[in-house]
Amino acid sequence: MTRPPTRALAPHPDRLFPADPSTRAIARRLYARVRDLPIVSPHGHTDPAWFAGNRPFANAATLLVTPDHYLLRMLYSLGVPLDAMGIGADAEPDPAAIWRRFAAHYPAFAGTPSQLWLDHVFHTLFGIEVRLDATTADFYYERINAALQTDAMRPRALFERMGIEVLATTESPLDDLRHHRSLRDAPWSGRVITTFRPDEVVDPDTPDFAARLDALGALTGEDTHGWRGYLAALRRRRADFKALGATATDHGHPSALTADLSASECERLFAGARAGTLAPAQAEVFRGQMLTEMAAMSCDDGLVMQLHPGAVRNHNPQLFARYGRDRGADIPQRTDYVHALKPLLDRYGNRTDFTLIVFTLDESTYARELAPMAGHYPALKLGPPWWFHDSPEGMLRYRRQTTETAGFFNTAGFNDDTRAFLSIAARHDVARRMDCRFLAEWVAEHRIDEDQAAELAPQLAYTLAKKAYRL
Amino acid sequence: MTRPPTRALAPHPDRLFPADPSTRAIARRLYARVRDLPIVSPHGHTDPAWFAGNRPFANAATLLVTPDHYLLRMLYSLGVPLDAMGIGADAEPDPAAIWRRFAAHYPAFAGTPSQLWLDHVFHTLFGIEVRLDATTADFYYERINAALQTDAMRPRALFERMGIEVLATTESPLDDLRHHRSLRDAPWSGRVITTFRPDEVVDPDTPDFAARLDALGALTGEDTHGWRGYLAALRRRRADFKALGATATDHGHPSALTADLSASECERLFAGARAGTLAPAQAEVFRGQMLTEMAAMSCDDGLVMQLHPGAVRNHNPQLFARYGRDRGADIPQRTDYVHALKPLLDRYGNRTDFTLIVFTLDESTYARELAPMAGHYPALKLGPPWWFHDSPEGMLRYRRQTTETAGFFNTAGFNDDTRAFLSIAARHDVARRMDCRFLAEWVAEHRIDEDQAAELAPQLAYTLAKKAYRL
Amino acid sequence: MTRPPTRALAPHPDRLFPADPSTRAIARRLYARVRDLPIVSPHGHTDPAWFAGNRPFANAATLLVTPDHYLLRMLYSLGVPLDAMGIGADAEPDPAAIWRRFAAHYPAFAGTPSQLWLDHVFHTLFGIEVRLDATTADFYYERINAALQTDAMRPRALFERMGIEVLATTESPLDDLRHHRSLRDAPWSGRVITTFRPDEVVDPDTPDFAARLDALGALTGEDTHGWRGYLAALRRRRADFKALGATATDHGHPSALTADLSASECERLFAGARAGTLAPAQAEVFRGQMLTEMAAMSCDDGLVMQLHPGAVRNHNPQLFARYGRDRGADIPQRTDYVHALKPLLDRYGNRTDFTLIVFTLDESTYARELAPMAGHYPALKLGPPWWFHDSPEGMLRYRRQTTETAGFFNTAGFNDDTRAFLSIAARHDVARRMDCRFLAEWVAEHRIDEDQAAELAPQLAYTLAKKAYRL
Repeated sequence: MTRPPTRALAPHPDRLFPADPSTRAIARRLYARVRDLPIVSPHGHTDPAWFAGNRPFANAATLLVTPDHYLLRMLYSLGVPLDAMGIGADAEPDPAAIWRRFAAHYPAFAGTPSQLWLDHVFHTLFGIEVRLDATTADFYYERINAALQTDAMRPRALFERMGIEVLATTESPLDDLRHHRSLRDAPWSGRVITTFRPDEVVDPDTPDFAARLDALGALTGEDTHGWRGYLAALRRRRADFKALGATATDHGHPSALTADLSASECERLFAGARAGTLAPAQAEVFRGQMLTEMAAMSCDDGLVMQLHPGAVRNHNPQLFARYGRDRGADIPQRTDYVHALKPLLDRYGNRTDFTLIVFTLDESTYARELAPMAGHYPALKLGPPWWFHDSPEGMLRYRRQTTETAGFFNTAGFNDDTRAFLSIAARHDVARRMDCRFLAEWVAEHRIDEDQAAELAPQLAYTLAKKAYRL
Repeated sequence: MTRPPTRALAPHPDRLFPADPSTRAIARRLYARVRDLPIVSPHGHTDPAWFAGNRPFANAATLLVTPDHYLLRMLYSLGVPLDAMGIGADAEPDPAAIWRRFAAHYPAFAGTPSQLWLDHVFHTLFGIEVRLDATTADFYYERINAALQTDAMRPRALFERMGIEVLATTESPLDDLRHHRSLRDAPWSGRVITTFRPDEVVDPDTPDFAARLDALGALTGEDTHGWRGYLAALRRRRADFKALGATATDHGHPSALTADLSASECERLFAGARAGTLAPAQAEVFRGQMLTEMAAMSCDDGLVMQLHPGAVRNHNPQLFARYGRDRGADIPQRTDYVHALKPLLDRYGNRTDFTLIVFTLDESTYARELAPMAGHYPALKLGPPWWFHDSPEGMLRYRRQTTETAGFFNTAGFNDDTRAFLSIAARHDVARRMDCRFLAEWVAEHRIDEDQAAELAPQLAYTLAKKAYRL
Repeated sequence: MTRPPTRALAPHPDRLFPADPSTRAIARRLYARVRDLPIVSPHGHTDPAWFAGNRPFANAATLLVTPDHYLLRMLYSLGVPLDAMGIGADAEPDPAAIWRRFAAHYPAFAGTPSQLWLDHVFHTLFGIEVRLDATTADFYYERINAALQTDAMRPRALFERMGIEVLATTESPLDDLRHHRSLRDAPWSGRVITTFRPDEVVDPDTPDFAARLDALGALTGEDTHGWRGYLAALRRRRADFKALGATATDHGHPSALTADLSASECERLFAGARAGTLAPAQAEVFRGQMLTEMAAMSCDDGLVMQLHPGAVRNHNPQLFARYGRDRGADIPQRTDYVHALKPLLDRYGNRTDFTLIVFTLDESTYARELAPMAGHYPALKLGPPWWFHDSPEGMLRYRRQTTETAGFFNTAGFNDDTRAFLSIAARHDVARRMDCRFLAEWVAEHRIDEDQAAELAPQLAYTLAKKAYRL
């Protein structure tokens, strides 16, 4: 095995804690209370096939680099073609070459959460003690690949080693859920559940929308040519998901628009959606109506509803044409909540038996819209900092801008929201450290007492997510 | 009296100061210069009847909980029905039960300004040394109620005890100002003045708008069926308010839109407003025109003009239908100033004898719009952090985002803006501590010298408000 | 010479560093690595005539006060008429009186970057050790004026004394570039280059637009009555600028809108622009199309493209009518990038041989739009904090809100963007201190290692600007 060079990789035990010694001491004490709590991961994008099949992961490059859009976006911005990272028709076929390219650019990730997460993974899961760069690329590659072949690094073993209590994946209503059925029947105690994500059958802008509705009809035995049958089919699939452990739905929309139309308007819009004749603004209203329909169904079946709005997907048409989606070209846009959510909230916002967890990519809404709304509507909870904001600074901004108005108990704990399975513990660790740091600062400034903070820390790390997602 | 349990309530003398010892020492020195300055409260919503009548307050629940929309909003978000808090047709009649419910949820206010303010009130005004929760609810209730019956806790005594130099209430032009007249004639030296808040007679969306204009006509002897008489009536009421000590007007609008229309357009819009035939956009323009009219009158009579824009009032129609306004269901919205204020500023922005104090619920405008505008227009001053932002973090964001462009002398000091009379000293104390903390940080970083900060601190705590409001 | 009074002016060696001792120590070590690096000033507004002629500056008032819109805006907001500061038809003719007025108001600049910059200039360039206020005004005035007559304070000597390696000015395509030609031929080694700023010949809202196009035609021998000749003329001027050292273009637009129209649409719009018949929305599209045309030309000639959008110029019509532009009455407005830049990026965003450096006055776009876009598109780089945000707090917000998503290597180093020549070293010093402070905080929190920070600091202070601007 290659000899390790000299730049040490040693994630500091006090990392992310404030520099002031008295505040840091408080942060350490709070963190000691939450460090080893089980991980509740109520929203993410890991592949259930991993846990159902429990086969070893292939290699460092295809496990850690190629599927990670955080890494692809930065590498691409620095001039690295995606082909060179193993994507597309002319993809580099050699994973070792991909890994080397990544390693050579790794120093440019300085200060990004990707660096924090990956260094944690390298050190904790693979025992590596030198930093990744061009000179250590091969050492890393061999060390990681060798480890991945051991039983300790198979999906189920990692699940247990990371202390995961429950992990939710995300599936479409058109998914046959075979892996989740297989997991249900497997002689393994790990709790991996699904989440109902109907975007492709509620968004008329999805390619082949009508064919997808046909497939939904075929799966459920409902007639999805009409509005009522369509709703009945969705209801049925929700029940199927719930039977396999789902406690939540998830909705990714360009905006937070909701609507509350009459049945005849719904039927007319649905007909247009099926026929592919809706203008963009009508498609937007249809999606908005479907959010309200989903809320209605949640009131019936108890599934917690999540809304992730505000990304302009596939902003780069050349990249999309050549490499497809999820390559790092999704860009947030300004997002309104106060008017957009009103139709849904007018109907269901006052219910205490319904939960809508809202996320944002537009931080200007934290203090202006989301905290005031979550601090009023019983049904509304704030999801944790999301995507670009799932980062130390993003977490500080979130707590500083929401807590004074919404408090802690209108927030929904932490989501890792990741497909990067190995990084789950690292991501929760960052969140736990940052929340303890935030609490420690307020304790040090005598804004809350340390015993209050000591009770809050496990809520933020564990309890709130479990409760908000009914897990 | 119930025995106090063990969790101590002891607001720390260094609360809200930075943790770093050298910075904290500077903050302490600055705070010592302002802690005991008289309180200038140029904008708020206390009831003048309290000071005119000087009767004891009834009990802890109806004094401290039921009227406080900050508390109601959070309790409601946590699933507590408003009836249970003594609001609405089926209101809980027992104040002790209301208090107990509040107490049980009080720990959920951790980290909110409400907790800071109330703990200060409990400790300073009632001498309580245990924290409020379910176990101490009855002890608190008895202790507070007993104290409220003493002469020391009557409105005028509290006014003096809190060191209030001047307190402004807010009245409508339709108010007969009897309490203010009574105060003027009372053998009490406390300075309680009124503020002219004409929203209900300038906003055509107010229910019974025409009847209100009739009432305005009856009060003033002007013919409010026409534009000129309407303006004359407003001018008269402004004079009446001024005669009772008012130095300011206040305007709460959905947006900051102003307009500068021709007389004939004004007359046409006014006719529509009176007839109730204005479309929403026309009503908005009418309100905008009225802001410019108010500015014109301020140029004549010297009343300082305040604008509080950007709240979507009564966002929750179910709640509004059942419980009415001011129950915590007002939500801020994105607010433009750069285009909206232009018509008014084009006319009066360059005057040095006119003052317009602008507030915001949209913090994204601090650095982008408001600080540059206040840092240019002689007439424009920035009001302090308002409502959801009247909080430690809100105050830091305000100073950090406005000072470098607008400086300190284009800001208008602190407003408590509260109807919670007992919390006034607590609110000013938070503002004084946060401003001293902010200054201390800049001194510690050698961005200003400590002698500069020592001169600035009393400006921020006292002088600027007095000067901006011509008190 | 007047006797100095007692308030000491002594810029602290640790100024702008964090108060925490361990973090400050790191900041000091990082700053020691960059303090004396040469200054790369790739974007600014100094007058090339200064360096071509190398004549002494006249006096303190006309050098330091009258041309500085940061100072004029604040003085005006505090009630000082611009005439009194030497501006306009009734301008105060006596520079000593202007200086005295400025000095009397100087304490109101506490906490502004103007104070930081000027104190640095007073202390470092003029050796002054007392603070500026009414009592020291005359002492300052005499001391500065005397110094300005020495050879050490002539433009070229100052250029060298400040350690400037390269300085870019900004000229219009209608400029004859005589000073830059004179500089090219001068026996002086200082590198002063021009920048191509075509606003007045691409913005149809410019007064006398057609006459300017005629002038452009006359200068280039191209027929600027047609779209093709117009583009050819611009291309020619770009070549002329490049021949005199230009490496960049610069574009100041009200919004970031870009367009990508057909040739026939371009021709039609151009005809309207020349005829002065474009509606405001059409003028906006024409400007947007011209940005895309400029990008196309940059792909050909290699000039780096800068975009400075989002200012409402001349917000105050009374002021503009009386005193003209650049008097401190430009106000930022909300600015969209995600949709506005798309047409240009769709065409050229994926190129690695084209660089577009984007600035913003709307900080809400840092984390939401600009960092995600710069962290994806190879062509896009983030310019440093601009104008109102070129300040210590502005710099912290910039790094905190962009680094986690865009990293450091998608940023373009520091620009002083100033016409205040004497303050250039002061401005770069503030940026270097703030970047070292930012890095020190992350080192102290173990988010990056100190050896990483030590490599990053000179990148931020020197290398990134040089590379981004191809200097």
